[in-house]
Amino acid sequence: MNVLKTAATAVAFAATVASGATATERWKVPVSFPTGLPGIGEPLKDWAATINAADADIQVKLFEPGEIVPPFAVLDAVRDNKVPAGMAVIGYSAGSIPATALLFGAPFGLGPREYAGWYYQGGGEALTQALLNKNGVHGFLCGMIGAEMGGWFREPLNSIEDFKGLRFRTAGLGADVLTRLGMSVTTLPLGETFPALERGAIDAAEGSLPSVDVILGLHKVAKHGYFPGWHQPVGTGHLVINQGVWDGLSDAQKEAVETSCEAITMKNLTISDSIQAASMAKAKADGAEFHVFSDEMIEAFRKATAEVMAEQSAKDADFKEIYESMEAHKKLVSGYLDMSSAD
Amino acid sequence: MNVLKTAATAVAFAATVASGATATERWKVPVSFPTGLPGIGEPLKDWAATINAADADIQVKLFEPGEIVPPFAVLDAVRDNKVPAGMAVIGYSAGSIPATALLFGAPFGLGPREYAGWYYQGGGEALTQALLNKNGVHGFLCGMIGAEMGGWFREPLNSIEDFKGLRFRTAGLGADVLTRLGMSVTTLPLGETFPALERGAIDAAEGSLPSVDVILGLHKVAKHGYFPGWHQPVGTGHLVINQGVWDGLSDAQKEAVETSCEAITMKNLTISDSIQAASMAKAKADGAEFHVFSDEMIEAFRKATAEVMAEQSAKDADFKEIYESMEAHKKLVSGYLDMSSAD
Repeated sequence: MNVLKTAATAVAFAATVASGATATERWKVPVSFPTGLPGIGEPLKDWAATINAADADIQVKLFEPGEIVPPFAVLDAVRDNKVPAGMAVIGYSAGSIPATALLFGAPFGLGPREYAGWYYQGGGEALTQALLNKNGVHGFLCGMIGAEMGGWFREPLNSIEDFKGLRFRTAGLGADVLTRLGMSVTTLPLGETFPALERGAIDAAEGSLPSVDVILGLHKVAKHGYFPGWHQPVGTGHLVINQGVWDGLSDAQKEAVETSCEAITMKNLTISDSIQAASMAKAKADGAEFHVFSDEMIEAFRKATAEVMAEQSAKDADFKEIYESMEAHKKLVSGYLDMSSAD
Repeated sequence: MNVLKTAATAVAFAATVASGATATERWKVPVSFPTGLPGIGEPLKDWAATINAADADIQVKLFEPGEIVPPFAVLDAVRDNKVPAGMAVIGYSAGSIPATALLFGAPFGLGPREYAGWYYQGGGEALTQALLNKNGVHGFLCGMIGAEMGGWFREPLNSIEDFKGLRFRTAGLGADVLTRLGMSVTTLPLGETFPALERGAIDAAEGSLPSVDVILGLHKVAKHGYFPGWHQPVGTGHLVINQGVWDGLSDAQKEAVETSCEAITMKNLTISDSIQAASMAKAKADGAEFHVFSDEMIEAFRKATAEVMAEQSAKDADFKEIYESMEAHKKLVSGYLDMSSAD
């Protein structure tokens, strides 16, 4: 600790501590996902361990969804100072802040490597911060997963016509795209998806990563699993902190918070990558079959996505600014990334 | 700082500081690359800023290659306690520790996302540590770049026969592969590559990322630039620390060192990705042309790579163990990664 370079400084610091001015921050931190869910929830515990071990006078304790704050209300609770900080799926706030849907992962948008590039080098961090600041919170990219699955269907899909009229569970901007293609889309909470599929209230469903969908059992009712997860090539988590709480932190504490998020983002991705094969093998053993959407389907998704993006951009200036910034970054790096792989 | 929960503890700590037992660690840290090189050297400065700001009683100062330690001797200098720590290209030690060539990035090996997955989830961290410990140092993955270029040639390449007899600058395991294909390979230092190419001592050269090669000017003499960098799909940096120095750190200091490396690894990759387009545009403006190796060439590289890997594995048990572990991780994640991208 640099402020303790000499005994004299240390004693002066001890006096400050005695007055309570720099007592350890003890944060109750609600999360948007159960910390038991492999790949998306479990890494939150790693983040908590990292910040607690950082010797930065911040101790966090995670609270499961609904324990102290409902999962969709984490950002609001932080803004209103009901809790100092939260681990939020900020896309859950897209109803009131439309551009958060892009930050959570956009159809045909940035993949993990590109998203991290946009965030750290392409202006994404500043745009994210500006959007969050307008809404009373401070925040950082703090966790990331790879592409979700494209969905589970009862029968194989032969053409884009097969989507029409299907009652499908999904969420986010992908829901708008599929509605445009004639699907009847429902945004049930993840936990209600399996029962709805089982009793026939919906025909098909998209949940999350294979590691999550297989635990939910989606493949047991709708055994045809489709890739790619075009609707969400990346999934992000964000640490959001009440603006007043953030402003009260020391520089060293701010640095510790930021570094803990940088450290967990890539590790979260590697955790989610490494467990998908086992989940896919489990699904196959249960009788599931994996498929890839046909080129015709992908083109239809792509065309409808462009329409949705234009429509949302016309409605909301923040959405437009962030979408254009993401597309510019994708264009910037795609040439090198496409050519640089030998696979 | 958790030990300062009360004033009493702080005063006790102040007494310890006065005795000098926990004085700030001040580390001279030599690096293997000039910190001015875009994408590969500059991020080292970000790492130094992160660890210095971490309030962990460690202050590092970077020293350029050759200033206090030659670039190829960083690991040796740390082992011999000439310096407490170094930012090493550990592949430069492949002559004495063959498996370090794999850790630096192997032909047709793991790309950045897969490498990080292998390191953090696939046993790579333990294997790396075991190899380094045997050689008297402690160390961490601490920086990463994407694929290098495949090389710069004076004339376009029409068939694998065109490689025979070419005098080519490269390094690492790729050199063994190309030798097997009839090339005459030289492993000149990066800084001597342009002069050798210009005066005709070599016919062609592979350097590093486009952002580095274009600064070196390779494209001005050999204007046909080839992708992919099959010989090195990832490039890694490692922080190496003298074992005795590491053992003397507090738990909080160890945590700070490890977290700083986790944080810079992904950021380093995003920096290198985001600057390649500008370098490629500059090369084109100077008259360079970009190509992709033909399928026939890639297959020849792949076949020769398998032979080199088998030969090296037979010679060195550490090489064999690490190579098999990397291949197992690639097999584990490739199904999901291949299917999960919509591009």
